[in-house]
Amino acid sequence: MGYKVRFEPAGREMELAPDETILQGAMSAGVHINASCGGSGTCGKCKVKIIKGETTVPPMPMLQAWEVKEGYRLACMTKPLTDIVVEIPVESQIDSSVLRRERAGFAKVLSPQDIHQLVGGWTIDPTVFKRYLELPPATKEDNMSDLARIYRALKQEYGFDRVSTDFRAIKKMSKLLRDADWKVTVTMVLTRRGHKLVNIEPGDTVEKNYSIVVDIGTTTVFGQLLNLHECQVFGCPGFDVDGAERYTLAVASDYNPQISYGEDVISRIVYALKPGGLERLQEVVVRSINKIITELLKMANVERKYVSHMVIAGNTTMTQLFLGMNPRYIREDPYVPTANFLPPVRAIHAGIELGDHVHIYMFPMVASYLGGDIVSGVLGSGIFQRDDLTLYMDIGTNGEIVLGNKDWMMSASCSAGPAFEGGGIKFGMRATRGAIEQVRISPDTYEPMIMTIGRARAKGICGSGLIYMVAELLETGIIDQSGKFMHTLSTNRVRKGEDGYEYVLSWAGENAIGQDITLTEIDIDNLIRAKGAIYAGCKVLLNQADMTFNDLDRLIVAGGFGHYIDLEAAKIIGLLPDIPEEKFMFVGNGSLLGARLLSFSKDLLKEAERIANMMTNIELSNFPSFMDEYVAAMFLPHTDETAFPNIMKIIKAEKAA
Amino acid sequence: MGYKVRFEPAGREMELAPDETILQGAMSAGVHINASCGGSGTCGKCKVKIIKGETTVPPMPMLQAWEVKEGYRLACMTKPLTDIVVEIPVESQIDSSVLRRERAGFAKVLSPQDIHQLVGGWTIDPTVFKRYLELPPATKEDNMSDLARIYRALKQEYGFDRVSTDFRAIKKMSKLLRDADWKVTVTMVLTRRGHKLVNIEPGDTVEKNYSIVVDIGTTTVFGQLLNLHECQVFGCPGFDVDGAERYTLAVASDYNPQISYGEDVISRIVYALKPGGLERLQEVVVRSINKIITELLKMANVERKYVSHMVIAGNTTMTQLFLGMNPRYIREDPYVPTANFLPPVRAIHAGIELGDHVHIYMFPMVASYLGGDIVSGVLGSGIFQRDDLTLYMDIGTNGEIVLGNKDWMMSASCSAGPAFEGGGIKFGMRATRGAIEQVRISPDTYEPMIMTIGRARAKGICGSGLIYMVAELLETGIIDQSGKFMHTLSTNRVRKGEDGYEYVLSWAGENAIGQDITLTEIDIDNLIRAKGAIYAGCKVLLNQADMTFNDLDRLIVAGGFGHYIDLEAAKIIGLLPDIPEEKFMFVGNGSLLGARLLSFSKDLLKEAERIANMMTNIELSNFPSFMDEYVAAMFLPHTDETAFPNIMKIIKAEKAA
Repeated sequence: MGYKVRFEPAGREMELAPDETILQGAMSAGVHINASCGGSGTCGKCKVKIIKGETTVPPMPMLQAWEVKEGYRLACMTKPLTDIVVEIPVESQIDSSVLRRERAGFAKVLSPQDIHQLVGGWTIDPTVFKRYLELPPATKEDNMSDLARIYRALKQEYGFDRVSTDFRAIKKMSKLLRDADWKVTVTMVLTRRGHKLVNIEPGDTVEKNYSIVVDIGTTTVFGQLLNLHECQVFGCPGFDVDGAERYTLAVASDYNPQISYGEDVISRIVYALKPGGLERLQEVVVRSINKIITELLKMANVERKYVSHMVIAGNTTMTQLFLGMNPRYIREDPYVPTANFLPPVRAIHAGIELGDHVHIYMFPMVASYLGGDIVSGVLGSGIFQRDDLTLYMDIGTNGEIVLGNKDWMMSASCSAGPAFEGGGIKFGMRATRGAIEQVRISPDTYEPMIMTIGRARAKGICGSGLIYMVAELLETGIIDQSGKFMHTLSTNRVRKGEDGYEYVLSWAGENAIGQDITLTEIDIDNLIRAKGAIYAGCKVLLNQADMTFNDLDRLIVAGGFGHYIDLEAAKIIGLLPDIPEEKFMFVGNGSLLGARLLSFSKDLLKEAERIANMMTNIELSNFPSFMDEYVAAMFLPHTDETAFPNIMKIIKAEKAA
Repeated sequence: MGYKVRFEPAGREMELAPDETILQGAMSAGVHINASCGGSGTCGKCKVKIIKGETTVPPMPMLQAWEVKEGYRLACMTKPLTDIVVEIPVESQIDSSVLRRERAGFAKVLSPQDIHQLVGGWTIDPTVFKRYLELPPATKEDNMSDLARIYRALKQEYGFDRVSTDFRAIKKMSKLLRDADWKVTVTMVLTRRGHKLVNIEPGDTVEKNYSIVVDIGTTTVFGQLLNLHECQVFGCPGFDVDGAERYTLAVASDYNPQISYGEDVISRIVYALKPGGLERLQEVVVRSINKIITELLKMANVERKYVSHMVIAGNTTMTQLFLGMNPRYIREDPYVPTANFLPPVRAIHAGIELGDHVHIYMFPMVASYLGGDIVSGVLGSGIFQRDDLTLYMDIGTNGEIVLGNKDWMMSASCSAGPAFEGGGIKFGMRATRGAIEQVRISPDTYEPMIMTIGRARAKGICGSGLIYMVAELLETGIIDQSGKFMHTLSTNRVRKGEDGYEYVLSWAGENAIGQDITLTEIDIDNLIRAKGAIYAGCKVLLNQADMTFNDLDRLIVAGGFGHYIDLEAAKIIGLLPDIPEEKFMFVGNGSLLGARLLSFSKDLLKEAERIANMMTNIELSNFPSFMDEYVAAMFLPHTDETAFPNIMKIIKAEKAA
């Protein structure tokens, strides 16, 4: 698929994925190129010379015309068009050496095609769809009621029997029918009894039928705008001939503004119990979702009135807060949620600014600490259909884990804190434009090479960048296995700052925020706690099933912390276990995964309920072994080195070098 | 059942129904007693002497103690306790004569027992009912969600499967369960799929379960408060051992305030099309219903929150206006309503001040001019179950008529105007306290004897009083068959007033309003038009079925114009046909009839829909014969005297006397 790239004078060769830049190739190959602007093309330091083959020629204001003519390119902006040989001029090398080893390669989020193929046996059959009707006008001889006329047409033209109608649609029906000269489009919802007519619009708007899916995370709210019509026309997974995805029209996200009232679910619940607290928490998250909706519609140039469907997944507390349900008993022994299965709620009643016919489908939940986000992930990743023993990990502010297959499932949840979403980290940020997501550090000079999302000047570090970063610091010996900085290295990158020792990733002059972007020892400690909690949770869950990581056929990693996760880096820090690479699958935001599927197929709603019902949740706080496992995991990668044999080999090899 | 009463010196004898007063007996027997205060006991003119038997002894401040001791009583307040003989003293006689003939007797509205027995084959099974639950508190071992705990109990204790829940109930569930120490009452609604839990209350409130039924008439709004729990405990028709009705807790009514914007449906529709008109009409009728609800609750001392159910019936225009649905096309050819079957509407969404779990069930309709009020009447009067050929007449501002039996039904509607509800009549009023409902006039002195509802001083004339009155005026020769006053009579009761000739029913000094209560020639003309339209409608409908009044097995008369209808009077004015008395049945407010039944039995909902579907509506305006029939009916009783042979005999006998 990709092109071969050979880097000289290092002599390293690798294959680039389509759309990857030469700089990304260099990072994977372990070839160090000076690159400090995050790939934004503004520092001009990653200049390379193409000595064989063809490449793209992007606008490169930092280069002279003669340089471009001679074959010079900025590695961060240039992509090969053939196999190429690249020479790295002396001035672009940080040092003459190359990094000691190549990276195993990024585990990219599965493409939408691949993800939708994780779940089999479903067909495109949206819960909410539209039908166009041309009605014969009422006459003296044929003077049935307007509604009866529509029913007759629905039956004659589409075979729909047992149709009921929402009163709001009835209310506007008569005038609209006549104003539209009896040519209308009706929006239908599949119900358990038949069909319900929920909206009526003038003319033919069948092609304008959209769904909004939202994941309410404790730290981040994600939204997607889906094209329900395209998905029907093109069939699932809905790609046209060029393989471009046609049904995800826009994606947007924002921090959950409830963060101001507490970083984790427990502190949110505490706040909700104060006078006016629940109302306040509901209000801010609703406002944030409305903002995301507006953004999605604007990005895709879609009119608000054409959104017919909404699916929301979130953990139990986020769900209850969003709907204004008192979350008090989630936090009090015996930790009981109000309800795991919620009826569809009319969007306007929840304060969501969509048409009054839109209902919100909330993903079913399992327990107080195992919510709809996980059920959605389990649905979307197809675990419930397979014989394979799978461990599903959703890495977020809460780490939620599910172990099982099509016959049984166990689940648990542990509080990891917001580090993986950039929260609680000095220069942490969400995985948006300007976030450092890839880092490599030279083991000789300790100079970093960074790449940002959107190839913009760096603004901070996102979750995946953080994992990367800590792995690199450990591999290069800048920190030790307990996450403490070595103080004796000859580099100005490591220094004592106001929060203790820290590493400077990007100097003030090179980035977008005008101050040094650093990673502190406290940040590293936060990450160690977060990964330790999740790893410990997995261990206890596996113990309960009398299994180990080695028994797993598959490990599905979900999380909104970035577009990429570097598997090796995640293993090096001990977040993921040291098992073969081919067993891993990274699905990105798992909560949106199932929510998307529910928009496309109403059959999967039953499956979602079945999943929620079959899952046995264990309460980690009831297991004293959890604390032991947690303490044991507070090391890089782990106090039990035998659990990470391959990783320890790498670390020791680096140290020996 | 009743007691024999013999009036002396007239020598007339009759039997009094229980609860009837001696004055009522005298009116039936055609014995004239001076009575001008409407039966309120304030004028003291109806003094009679009991010369044999026992009677009640009410407080009679107008009589001296010795008079009471001697056996004197006020006829308007006294009831027999044995068979009695009554002597009418000279001072209580208007004249020495007696009225020439006895009245055939009032056709009293069927009692609730009788009415409920009109419909067979149904059992008490309210759509909305309550169940008490004592739940085991949540523990670590038994920590299912609150909702799942309730579902489990509903299944274990009551066998309910397939329960769904309204989100509003879920929202308050967790706190309420714990505050109530896990002892709660749930309100359940039977749905087509199973049961829906719509409300949850602390403690055991099973005995507090009420329904409100409302008839939205064009002129009058009627409401009743029903006890759904009593009806279940005592079985239908819900009478205790004493035969007292226990489940109708209160009745109330009010003019439909939309009257200010037009007296009939057409002028309401015209107003609704003005800017803000629809909103205004909706607002005022909703306010009026809320007022009635408040009144009902106060009368029965029932808390608002315990009302679980509401049924509303009304004609198509009233229904659409109540729900804020544009009624424009009801009035425009081809006269199409928006919908005949409406889904239940949440009461609070319609502006009705009841608990947010209460839904309003609207009676299904048939056509633009045949609404849910008629379907309700057809349901409640059992026509749809019988082989008998029945004509159902609902006499109101719109006269609506249904002809048929269990196999077929035809219907039509004609605009009668508000006369039967006291509208458009100079001293007309609704059938409430103080309304003159019975009148007899001495053919010799032309003096009236009046009886009011509630036996209060007269305030005006209600629909039934009006019918009575015009019949008496005709019989006594005070008006002729075209409704014009004879100007030559020697009585000060007939005079020329500011609106033309009129008859004084009650002098200013005798009544509650301080001015003469009169009936004018214009009033009489209005009544003739009203009765003419209804009679003509019946004729055309019968013609369509190739039938005459004589083919009818039964004629059911519904209407809210009073508690009684005097059959003979109604025949004399030509409102009702001259067919044998035993074929008539008077059911009072027909619209409330079915609405009540729907509260008690959800099975009847299906029947209501079947009725609405089976009815063939004919548009009278499409029949030129209607206008001919109408003109022919503009006479007392009718221009075709052969159609009223018995009535003409009476009238002629009176004239001859």
